[in-house]
Amino acid sequence: MADKAQIQEAIKTQGEVVRKLKAEKASKEQIDEEVAKLLELKTQLGGDEGRHQFTLKTAKGTRDYNPKQMAIREKVFNTIISCFKRHGAENIDTPVFELKETLTGKYGEDSKLIYDLKDQGGELLSLRYDLTVPFARYLAMNKVTNIKRYHIAKVYRRDNPAMTRGRYREFYQCDFDIAGQYDPMIPDAECLKIVHEILSELELGDFRIKVNDRRILDGMFAVCGVPDDKFRTICSTVDKLDKMSWEDVRSEMVKEKGLSEEAADQIGQYVSLQGGMDLAERLLQDAKMSQSKQACAGLTDMKQLFSYLQLFQVTDKVVFDLSLARGLDYYTGVIYEAILTQTGPVPVAATQNGAGEKAEEGVSVGSVAGGGRYDGLVGMFDPKGRKVPCVGVSIGIERVFSIMEQKAEASAEKVRTTETQVMVASAQKNLLEERLRLTAELWNAGIKAEVMYKKNPKLLSQLQHCEDSGIPLVAIIGEQELKDGVVKLRTVHSREEIDVSRAELVEEIKRRTSDV
Amino acid sequence: MADKAQIQEAIKTQGEVVRKLKAEKASKEQIDEEVAKLLELKTQLGGDEGRHQFTLKTAKGTRDYNPKQMAIREKVFNTIISCFKRHGAENIDTPVFELKETLTGKYGEDSKLIYDLKDQGGELLSLRYDLTVPFARYLAMNKVTNIKRYHIAKVYRRDNPAMTRGRYREFYQCDFDIAGQYDPMIPDAECLKIVHEILSELELGDFRIKVNDRRILDGMFAVCGVPDDKFRTICSTVDKLDKMSWEDVRSEMVKEKGLSEEAADQIGQYVSLQGGMDLAERLLQDAKMSQSKQACAGLTDMKQLFSYLQLFQVTDKVVFDLSLARGLDYYTGVIYEAILTQTGPVPVAATQNGAGEKAEEGVSVGSVAGGGRYDGLVGMFDPKGRKVPCVGVSIGIERVFSIMEQKAEASAEKVRTTETQVMVASAQKNLLEERLRLTAELWNAGIKAEVMYKKNPKLLSQLQHCEDSGIPLVAIIGEQELKDGVVKLRTVHSREEIDVSRAELVEEIKRRTSDV
Repeated sequence: MADKAQIQEAIKTQGEVVRKLKAEKASKEQIDEEVAKLLELKTQLGGDEGRHQFTLKTAKGTRDYNPKQMAIREKVFNTIISCFKRHGAENIDTPVFELKETLTGKYGEDSKLIYDLKDQGGELLSLRYDLTVPFARYLAMNKVTNIKRYHIAKVYRRDNPAMTRGRYREFYQCDFDIAGQYDPMIPDAECLKIVHEILSELELGDFRIKVNDRRILDGMFAVCGVPDDKFRTICSTVDKLDKMSWEDVRSEMVKEKGLSEEAADQIGQYVSLQGGMDLAERLLQDAKMSQSKQACAGLTDMKQLFSYLQLFQVTDKVVFDLSLARGLDYYTGVIYEAILTQTGPVPVAATQNGAGEKAEEGVSVGSVAGGGRYDGLVGMFDPKGRKVPCVGVSIGIERVFSIMEQKAEASAEKVRTTETQVMVASAQKNLLEERLRLTAELWNAGIKAEVMYKKNPKLLSQLQHCEDSGIPLVAIIGEQELKDGVVKLRTVHSREEIDVSRAELVEEIKRRTSDV
Repeated sequence: MADKAQIQEAIKTQGEVVRKLKAEKASKEQIDEEVAKLLELKTQLGGDEGRHQFTLKTAKGTRDYNPKQMAIREKVFNTIISCFKRHGAENIDTPVFELKETLTGKYGEDSKLIYDLKDQGGELLSLRYDLTVPFARYLAMNKVTNIKRYHIAKVYRRDNPAMTRGRYREFYQCDFDIAGQYDPMIPDAECLKIVHEILSELELGDFRIKVNDRRILDGMFAVCGVPDDKFRTICSTVDKLDKMSWEDVRSEMVKEKGLSEEAADQIGQYVSLQGGMDLAERLLQDAKMSQSKQACAGLTDMKQLFSYLQLFQVTDKVVFDLSLARGLDYYTGVIYEAILTQTGPVPVAATQNGAGEKAEEGVSVGSVAGGGRYDGLVGMFDPKGRKVPCVGVSIGIERVFSIMEQKAEASAEKVRTTETQVMVASAQKNLLEERLRLTAELWNAGIKAEVMYKKNPKLLSQLQHCEDSGIPLVAIIGEQELKDGVVKLRTVHSREEIDVSRAELVEEIKRRTSDV
């Protein structure tokens, strides 16, 4: 095979061939053919490092899940899905890619992070960026006007990955949304109740849920003298308050975005406010704030929301925080975000694929859930612009995985990656067929059973496999047991062995593993 | 907004700008900028149809799953996952895209069906085509030399979709594989046992599992006088025997692939053979076949395989069939394929997204599982070429979904899309807060409960929702019940109502829905 320099030379030459053909307006077939050769060379260059050091990795910003990680993931998903089902949600799924136009104009500046598929003829496609836009497309396309659904799937963002902090280019979202025309703030309150339930059950440590309302923000900007056309850009600066000091945010508003110093200072007074229902009441009386109809509508709803949250007994974790803005364009009402408040250094997870990312110490995982009301999004897809009011929440599960993995690493308890109840073993030779026969009997009775794929495995290696993978029982057969119609049932941790008749074996295994 | 003709004109002009810059060897930044404008215009053109008829659809060959389809999917997955776990499998997951080079050279002619991602800077990526190649990459990358794993995920093929027959461009595969150096045919037999268990449990009607071996095929080709360099192409012609008559297959071999008539006729005699262990024995005695060492090795293993299948009691469905060839390049030993043998017209599933595909009547769903041994694939990824023998099976689950959906349509029994146990309702007005309070109590006790998001819903509409979505119980509260500290618990199907004390409500709901 050619070396790297040779291929690079060939790419250069081939690039010139393509450019020349294009300049000459050669036929599409001819150009495509030469472009294909060029790409083939580019691929070779990538693969060429493989001569001596094959590029054996996953794509940048992605990772495999090994069995231990999958066991943790399954546990987390079960907790979340149980919660969604407890709240009566249905489940839907959508394709991993959408028509490019479906995603266009939904994400503002973040659109540049969308993965496009190559134009191989046919439709222009992009990988989904979140589950909300596909949900809105689904509702409009199927003329669904009310549904409570969850959707757990991977989404894709060409972002700068920070994998040690659980930030990937391919990551799971767990979304719960309520679509439909209902009385104010009831579904909104249920979304917050769900966040509270899930974060409590996952035992991730203490957390706080910040709540605000886009109408309150817009009203605040209006009464503080922000020009209409600057609402969005000022809003996205406010959104940085969780990472930047007020001084820096103020400076960005004034110096970069051209806001007056007076307006900035007035905003500064509001965004430092935090509270509960009392704060909403106070702001409704506020001389300036009360001048904005929008703000009043938002504040009245905020009071209503807190009254429902009191019924749900979750106000201990919920804070009305005027600095919460959230980035996405499509929110129209209440918005919220949950953060873990556990500080202190977090142990660093190992990088998965040696992509050379530097481990960072003591980083906080930050936001683990977020969402809000988006009453206009479905209308963007409906040919007649019919609106379907929606409110929802998305659990940022990758950060949760990171924490759970760190906890599992730190814990003495071993994570089991299989659910095998019993290993069918023998101490003597030439019993493979008898082992297979018994194993099939157990499988057919619904018992989770394993057997070694060796004609004559050593008893020690069979027992060692049980120790390694946490299998609690061993069913040992030998000539004598076969003659007596029994099986020696061994408990791995106590090494205790008893004879069990073949007829009672299934029941005995079930009895002994019922708490596993 | 501009009309279609205007945009098309603009695209033409912009195309010329780009070509000119390229010809002038302008800077990359400058060219990229103009290319971006061009693509933006192309997108607009796609989106422009939306002025009057917005393109509200999923990408070609893909579909959404609605809640009813998801309920069926969940049931099918549970059956399959239970089986995989019963056999002691671990679970892994890999990213939806791989480095392009990882997939290069693994799929022969089918490589043209791979979806590539657009080169947006960085690595060249492709959507996974199956789960086997990512699995092999995973094993090599993590230096795993033995594992029994399952992986359920979507794969992508730019194939001609036939969605009424359950053929999509995005579809699930459910893979179970055993990697490791073991005694011959034991893991291979377990794979077939798994196919037998899953197809039996899914109750899809009668089925048959065809088995063959690549070594037997190659040996057969050799003794029939097929030149070495024609093995693969003749093998892919043999693979068409399930769709074409022997006459047509023979004609393709002789006229298109240039095989001699004698060789073709000799092959014809072999590929018509079907049987069990007896056939393997007979062929081992066959004057011609026994001349090939490869064939003898394959036939000896086939005998061994059938002896294990007898222990597993699955030989009723398994046929040694010399016409089975399977398309993929990477198989090295035993191969198999399961087909449903139910004939007769199959009801036609409705097309999901109005993509204009014509419904076809009475089509058979054909193959529902397939797999085999691939001992060389992992070595293709290992820098030192170290081999890890593998055998596995893939369940073609989309076809199974299609059948299950048709069965559900035909059945009188309604598919439930939620698991809600109880609806919290009231007949009187102004009890929203009391309903919310009780609902939260139930959620906190782990009961799956729903409540209407209306201040004063009608009792009839609350009961109607229970009828529609199969909720078995209603907990009704009114002024009197609140005073007495009870709840009126109504059984939806019998309309029977009894008073239950608030303290006993949770237990009573659990008791009544324990069989749901």
